[in-house]
Amino acid sequence: MRRKERASYERSTIHAILDEALYCHVGFVLAGQPYVIPTVHARIGEHLYLHGAVASRTLRTAALASPLCVTVTLLDGLVLARSAFNHSMNYRSVVILATASELSDATEKRAALEALVERVVPGRAIEVRAPSSKELKATAVLCVPIAEASAKIRTGPPQDDAEDYALGCWAGVVPLHLTPGTPQPDPRLRAPAPAPVLGARGSGEPSRS
Amino acid sequence: MRRKERASYERSTIHAILDEALYCHVGFVLAGQPYVIPTVHARIGEHLYLHGAVASRTLRTAALASPLCVTVTLLDGLVLARSAFNHSMNYRSVVILATASELSDATEKRAALEALVERVVPGRAIEVRAPSSKELKATAVLCVPIAEASAKIRTGPPQDDAEDYALGCWAGVVPLHLTPGTPQPDPRLRAPAPAPVLGARGSGEPSRS
Repeated sequence: MRRKERASYERSTIHAILDEALYCHVGFVLAGQPYVIPTVHARIGEHLYLHGAVASRTLRTAALASPLCVTVTLLDGLVLARSAFNHSMNYRSVVILATASELSDATEKRAALEALVERVVPGRAIEVRAPSSKELKATAVLCVPIAEASAKIRTGPPQDDAEDYALGCWAGVVPLHLTPGTPQPDPRLRAPAPAPVLGARGSGEPSRS
Repeated sequence: MRRKERASYERSTIHAILDEALYCHVGFVLAGQPYVIPTVHARIGEHLYLHGAVASRTLRTAALASPLCVTVTLLDGLVLARSAFNHSMNYRSVVILATASELSDATEKRAALEALVERVVPGRAIEVRAPSSKELKATAVLCVPIAEASAKIRTGPPQDDAEDYALGCWAGVVPLHLTPGTPQPDPRLRAPAPAPVLGARGSGEPSRS
């Protein structure tokens, strides 16, 4: 298949995709059965951090079940071709193969948890109550080295067969953006406070909002 | 952790999440290493269909690497709590554990490939050129039974600790929607044709577009 798809091992490309994605999918194996679960992640330098409740088995089991696969996908658009066969998606994805370790140092754990809040809403970590010692103990933080990592990217219009360009149906790309809606204040919000302003995520031109 | 999270085994809930998601993540194991790759899927009844190039190793290897895990995640909102610890996401996800089989029947393959186009843009399968016999042979279609499947859903405002409700920072939910932007016609489009009109995907109120 002739695709406008390319692989990349550039650190800057990989980092940018990891930083834009709000969540990742973590794959791990238990007794031969693969499991894939969505979770939030934060990057600090060449490491990705994941967290979960110590009481919950899933994440810690994943930590022990080395190796892991962490995959991040940003869907950028629907690629509508003139033939069913050449339909595609524009996307940017990163796949990391790694063995994770669990953080034990409280300072490192605090930094990772702060990064997890900051990347979603910059500036928020200093606005909210920081984790207590009890909360810190109840939270497992996994550190995943971004070493064996690759990006895959598809951009641009459909790639149709030469003879199909004569067909009359519409063809092109419908861009997709993850767009924030109107913030919904917690019903228990006591005093008026400014809601965070977040931009849309996605490549290409801004959405029509 | 007190979360507004619930698990569901309802077929209608599971089907609705699978149908709304534009892509899934497939997890498979090769020599003990888990791999998680994004791909598009279509549901017909109690089966999910995935496809890939016969020439590409990935999907067929996945087919042989039984069992699989197929996970679909819809991100519905950022849940901003008054403490870092209680930050969360509103989401709907489905996890399917299954062994896939490869379709060999041409009629079944055609139906699955048509469903893959139709679910993205309803009505498009009859507008575009249908797969040729050669294209059909070049495409592997996997059938995944939706039998061992569960949904997990979080909705609603943050769940803060009792004493944190006195804090002054903004708290609530920022809804997120996957919003289509302005269709970008293929530069090689010969005649004017109406671009497809797609709605936004995501729960809750419509986005501000």
